[in-house]
Amino acid sequence: MRPFNFNTEKLIAIAIEEDIGTGDITTNSIIPSDATLTGQFIAREEGMVCGLGVVKRIFEIIDPLVEFTPKIQDGMHVVPQQVLADICGPARAILTGERVSLNFLQHLSGIATKTARIIESVSGTGIRILDTRKTIPGLRWLEKYAVRTGGGLNHRMNLSDGIMIKNNHIKAAGSITLAMEQARLNAPPTLKIEVEVESMEQVQEAINAGADIIMLDNMDLVTMRQAVKKINGRALIEASGNMINKNLSDVAKTGVDMISIGGLTHSVKALDISLRISQQ
Amino acid sequence: MRPFNFNTEKLIAIAIEEDIGTGDITTNSIIPSDATLTGQFIAREEGMVCGLGVVKRIFEIIDPLVEFTPKIQDGMHVVPQQVLADICGPARAILTGERVSLNFLQHLSGIATKTARIIESVSGTGIRILDTRKTIPGLRWLEKYAVRTGGGLNHRMNLSDGIMIKNNHIKAAGSITLAMEQARLNAPPTLKIEVEVESMEQVQEAINAGADIIMLDNMDLVTMRQAVKKINGRALIEASGNMINKNLSDVAKTGVDMISIGGLTHSVKALDISLRISQQ
Amino acid sequence: MRPFNFNTEKLIAIAIEEDIGTGDITTNSIIPSDATLTGQFIAREEGMVCGLGVVKRIFEIIDPLVEFTPKIQDGMHVVPQQVLADICGPARAILTGERVSLNFLQHLSGIATKTARIIESVSGTGIRILDTRKTIPGLRWLEKYAVRTGGGLNHRMNLSDGIMIKNNHIKAAGSITLAMEQARLNAPPTLKIEVEVESMEQVQEAINAGADIIMLDNMDLVTMRQAVKKINGRALIEASGNMINKNLSDVAKTGVDMISIGGLTHSVKALDISLRISQQ
Amino acid sequence: MRPFNFNTEKLIAIAIEEDIGTGDITTNSIIPSDATLTGQFIAREEGMVCGLGVVKRIFEIIDPLVEFTPKIQDGMHVVPQQVLADICGPARAILTGERVSLNFLQHLSGIATKTARIIESVSGTGIRILDTRKTIPGLRWLEKYAVRTGGGLNHRMNLSDGIMIKNNHIKAAGSITLAMEQARLNAPPTLKIEVEVESMEQVQEAINAGADIIMLDNMDLVTMRQAVKKINGRALIEASGNMINKNLSDVAKTGVDMISIGGLTHSVKALDISLRISQQ
Amino acid sequence: MRPFNFNTEKLIAIAIEEDIGTGDITTNSIIPSDATLTGQFIAREEGMVCGLGVVKRIFEIIDPLVEFTPKIQDGMHVVPQQVLADICGPARAILTGERVSLNFLQHLSGIATKTARIIESVSGTGIRILDTRKTIPGLRWLEKYAVRTGGGLNHRMNLSDGIMIKNNHIKAAGSITLAMEQARLNAPPTLKIEVEVESMEQVQEAINAGADIIMLDNMDLVTMRQAVKKINGRALIEASGNMINKNLSDVAKTGVDMISIGGLTHSVKALDISLRISQQ
Amino acid sequence: MRPFNFNTEKLIAIAIEEDIGTGDITTNSIIPSDATLTGQFIAREEGMVCGLGVVKRIFEIIDPLVEFTPKIQDGMHVVPQQVLADICGPARAILTGERVSLNFLQHLSGIATKTARIIESVSGTGIRILDTRKTIPGLRWLEKYAVRTGGGLNHRMNLSDGIMIKNNHIKAAGSITLAMEQARLNAPPTLKIEVEVESMEQVQEAINAGADIIMLDNMDLVTMRQAVKKINGRALIEASGNMINKNLSDVAKTGVDMISIGGLTHSVKALDISLRISQQ
Repeated sequence: MRPFNFNTEKLIAIAIEEDIGTGDITTNSIIPSDATLTGQFIAREEGMVCGLGVVKRIFEIIDPLVEFTPKIQDGMHVVPQQVLADICGPARAILTGERVSLNFLQHLSGIATKTARIIESVSGTGIRILDTRKTIPGLRWLEKYAVRTGGGLNHRMNLSDGIMIKNNHIKAAGSITLAMEQARLNAPPTLKIEVEVESMEQVQEAINAGADIIMLDNMDLVTMRQAVKKINGRALIEASGNMINKNLSDVAKTGVDMISIGGLTHSVKALDISLRISQQ
Repeated sequence: MRPFNFNTEKLIAIAIEEDIGTGDITTNSIIPSDATLTGQFIAREEGMVCGLGVVKRIFEIIDPLVEFTPKIQDGMHVVPQQVLADICGPARAILTGERVSLNFLQHLSGIATKTARIIESVSGTGIRILDTRKTIPGLRWLEKYAVRTGGGLNHRMNLSDGIMIKNNHIKAAGSITLAMEQARLNAPPTLKIEVEVESMEQVQEAINAGADIIMLDNMDLVTMRQAVKKINGRALIEASGNMINKNLSDVAKTGVDMISIGGLTHSVKALDISLRISQQ
Repeated sequence: MRPFNFNTEKLIAIAIEEDIGTGDITTNSIIPSDATLTGQFIAREEGMVCGLGVVKRIFEIIDPLVEFTPKIQDGMHVVPQQVLADICGPARAILTGERVSLNFLQHLSGIATKTARIIESVSGTGIRILDTRKTIPGLRWLEKYAVRTGGGLNHRMNLSDGIMIKNNHIKAAGSITLAMEQARLNAPPTLKIEVEVESMEQVQEAINAGADIIMLDNMDLVTMRQAVKKINGRALIEASGNMINKNLSDVAKTGVDMISIGGLTHSVKALDISLRISQQ
Repeated sequence: MRPFNFNTEKLIAIAIEEDIGTGDITTNSIIPSDATLTGQFIAREEGMVCGLGVVKRIFEIIDPLVEFTPKIQDGMHVVPQQVLADICGPARAILTGERVSLNFLQHLSGIATKTARIIESVSGTGIRILDTRKTIPGLRWLEKYAVRTGGGLNHRMNLSDGIMIKNNHIKAAGSITLAMEQARLNAPPTLKIEVEVESMEQVQEAINAGADIIMLDNMDLVTMRQAVKKINGRALIEASGNMINKNLSDVAKTGVDMISIGGLTHSVKALDISLRISQQ
Repeated sequence: MRPFNFNTEKLIAIAIEEDIGTGDITTNSIIPSDATLTGQFIAREEGMVCGLGVVKRIFEIIDPLVEFTPKIQDGMHVVPQQVLADICGPARAILTGERVSLNFLQHLSGIATKTARIIESVSGTGIRILDTRKTIPGLRWLEKYAVRTGGGLNHRMNLSDGIMIKNNHIKAAGSITLAMEQARLNAPPTLKIEVEVESMEQVQEAINAGADIIMLDNMDLVTMRQAVKKINGRALIEASGNMINKNLSDVAKTGVDMISIGGLTHSVKALDISLRISQQ
Repeated sequence: MRPFNFNTEKLIAIAIEEDIGTGDITTNSIIPSDATLTGQFIAREEGMVCGLGVVKRIFEIIDPLVEFTPKIQDGMHVVPQQVLADICGPARAILTGERVSLNFLQHLSGIATKTARIIESVSGTGIRILDTRKTIPGLRWLEKYAVRTGGGLNHRMNLSDGIMIKNNHIKAAGSITLAMEQARLNAPPTLKIEVEVESMEQVQEAINAGADIIMLDNMDLVTMRQAVKKINGRALIEASGNMINKNLSDVAKTGVDMISIGGLTHSVKALDISLRISQQ
């Protein structure tokens, strides 16, 4: 099945175009058009790999004659010097596609690695870790795929697949109750309604109004526990707000159902990976 | 003048599309279509701002009636709580465009801030700091703009605006000398030729072959100094290779002309910025 | 705010392009480029109007000098000979854009009219009328807008904004219970889960598995009543299956929450509307 | 040969994109990626099938591994329960592509069926049945293909492949004679000129001016007969105007050459077709 | 009215993109962003100007603040040093858009000039001069506009707006008669049928089959005269085949209705035009 | 490797679309869909062929079943009646793609032929012949490929891959010296700086400022020789300005390194090539 949606296909095309420009002038002037190469994508540090399918797609676009053969799968842990994939085929295509491939692979692997480490840190608590919409522009789908690869779950993909009533919506409608009335009246009944709350009073109002999910924004652990007790199973509970800097096991123990973390995607360190040409 | 090139315009469109999906169902069901809002973009931490023009463009696309008025310019340092820009206009458009705007603004400001700190750290040495092609896919132009905003210079924008003979090209051609002969024969004489070298022998060969730029890859400080001495002004000298973890002032003192750093763009921490709605 | 999403904008462009081809050869050879016209869009039969914003957008694209001034709003009922909108401006643009405008306006008004008549037929019952994904390819968003205009609500916009477990998914997973376990494990917890059932046994299993919405497919009225009784408020209930040919008031009286009707969009009679040129 | 023109390819892409959104979340969370399915497209009512090539193209785009094998050809009559095509391959792709395929197939088959019934109703009269430009936006080419499939002929595809002088053009130019002079002067001599007339005086003027085609708009049968007699073979004669509600055999007997009918495409009832999964 | 069709708009975008690349690095590094310029487009040789609207559109795209003010209109003759248009506004935009503007303007003016000279050479004969489909790829619409500007008429715009039965179609169908039967049976009756003939026998067959236009391919003057006599007004007559190298007045005198010339568009000498910066 | 960059792919698509329109109505109504053809592309005059890869790509897009088999390679000289390529496959696709293929092939071969003749005329002098940015809009990459095919070298591909300081930049900056200071300060140090000069004073200033390339604009032979002497190897020297009308061997003998010629691309005579259908 088509691995990517249309937007992601367009991003891949833009990424190739922005890196190649009008042509790889170095490679094309030095390497004969019939030269071939063999190489390996190699991990330079420990982590979790993600994005091998994007690399496959990039070389399909650049030259279908390139053979890209993953030796592992997305979601596997690697150690330094481990081979991620073999590549062989036309030398020009391989050298031209190297950088754009690595740029995707290193970034997505960085996200998967970060997510996996967080998941590891809360293992046994039963808590679910979710991403947010704080993603690098254009990479929404791929970054959320990398979060899933790392063991996380996805929160809303975009503004159309869930109702999330935030502070500003509440102010504009007058109250949580009034906002939810409008949402029920106008939005598809097939969508869940989530309400962001900042106080116990809001928690109570959200319960009364029948929220499907209640998001506890920037609450301390004590208040979280109170909220969990008050909600008492009548809604899913999400903890959010600068979670990357908190002890997530402690958050998990408050009894919330899930934790969402913007830093999974908005502040990412690339995983070090390189292409080693082994023979010609 | 059109602030962005075509690829960047396409990225902005993809970013808006991926975040809005088929429509902001929350805002559209709760906020009346004729409601208006006033707000401010606020820094939450210290840093350098970059990307205000992108935010302006996003709101032009979402709704030309939104007035986005920067209070500072790209490249200025801000402190927590400082207002970056005022915004007022249709409430739906402002709430719908909030996240995608912040996603661009926080990422580009993160790059500018990181670059500026590095520039600051080498002030007085005369060294020039350059970026690389290790950028997040689709954001090449914007990230390189953020590097310039932070005081850095741009290396090649893509594979077509400079000749960069790397290890693999040298192997394929047989030697630096032979590679440069091919480049001179086939490539436009309007382009510079840069050669990546890993040893003093290669430095000598690159000089003899007439390289315009010699890139010292992963050399220690002692070897760099030898290379600078040997080249003696006959080529520009670039130091590269894991520079983000080195003492750049020490590198600068070896006499190289410029340092290129992949980490300026491939591993970035978002600058914390938010949209505060002040009235309705 | 931008009235349409990107896909709808692309559809409008395709529609203009497919009707104009390389140019309106008749108009351009006969009408001087500086001629102007005044006219009115007129209803030729009774119904509800929908799509005036699309017409506005079409003329903006063809020629921003055309002034298109609606005299009524989408969702209003009209009678034969009633003026929907005035138009004046460059004669060439008005004549060139006439047909593509009417094609949109007549089709969307046909949907709004059909929906409004169905809503009228169940007035007082409290039932909600929903559309389906059985729309004309490319017009999903506009047709669902027309349904809302006619007083209906929207079911899922597409396959990504809700989980709908149908017969085939149940077979593939082994049972409703197993299918829902997989959905909960892998899908975003922010989405509702709807299950399509065909028997009382499946109703019970869906309840036990915790479905958010239960869709009664092609059930007779007696069975529907039984299902409503059994579900007893633990899930939203949707009736579906050839509803266009049923007495919807009777369906409503069974106690289901909502009825979804494919015929709202897949089999539509255009509302008769024309452009009358009144002076030159 | 490429079955569709560029606009139609773009429409198919839009249709897939608008139905899949960011991914078929139900199928992807419940069905294993390596599951396969076998099924049949089945007619649920009597009619003529059209659009099998579009379904083939849709599955090529979604997943080239899907095998779609038509058992009949476009233009064949089917009876309830008749198999139109077999499908087998990856389960995810088949379930994901089901609705968008059916939406095309049911709509185009609806047009072919309607056209074929009209053709049948005038069999033996020698009259030719044509469509108009009153098509659903974006589907011009496909709908005109469906009309041909049903046995009709196509009128102009768009505004650039024929000159059609309507009432408004005549007013603007001053007279039929003057309008035709302008057309002859400025338009390619390779195009036919058609004139729309509403009275016997206009018929005479159109003959004198040398019209290639004369379109009798909304005339009664008596006037049509008079017009045919007066024209006497000097131009092709087209009858038009609310023809869907007339006795077309009677119109045919007046001696006109062809009848054009907007209702072939602007008001269509979908033919009932479904996808039956037969095994896994 | 939108001056260009969608394909031409896309070509203009491609042309701007291919010339600017990722940015005009010279201008942007040397010229301050707030600098302004005034200049004139100047003819450097005698000829007819065509394409001022394209230049206007290019600067609208590059920077709407540029004011481009034509002093003459497309189709006017100019002499060396004559001012075609004034330009003023942001210096960067003007310098960046200079070359792409001139590339369009010089090419289209070259076509208009060549056409006008040919029209002049046959003045008084009443013959009509037509173009062909032998145009530079991507510029079909603009080049045909330039031909009209120069006083010529357009032959078919593309393969869909006229039926042109050539030698190969005749062979495939078996004869002109059989080919025309198929065309009448399957093609829209709103299109003219043109037949290409190479002998008097074919002329006779084309007449008998009822061709609307007969194209005499590569005939000598004597044969042309015979053909004209035999056709005797029953079809339009077009002379074609290496006409650029013939005495067109002699061809005109044979009595044919029109002459089509590929060389109007496939082999064009640019008209020399430059942008003179007059002040800053 | 993908033979063309994205812009060129888009141009090819536009070219096919503009020639086919909504379909090749002649071929489709006369030729059965299962008919096949065999033919040859034949040179009608002497010259150098260029563009066979574009023809291959066009038929891949129109119908992958067409087999296009070049008998020679781009850059080879041909004589009248020589076969360039065989073609066989579906008759409709071959006839439909004929004209757009020839339009590319004849134009690019025209450029290669012209370039090769100029290269021949300066053989033995060691001079390098370059193109300019004076290309037909949309064909930049293909035309520069044709120049290389003919034996020339490429100057800048666009405004972003080299710094070229022209008269207007010098005026705006105040002097060559000041302009170069700005360029060095702001532009990537990886790009060469070329300066256009019109006098010996400017030559001296460009040398002093450290220009990488000095372009002598419209100088007579005597002045060129003086400039070469003064520059004395400190910069590459390019001669430019109406070179198409000069004795290039004389220019070469002045000692300049390269000559750039706009007429290679802006005023081209198509090479006469045709498609001969040999059997069915």
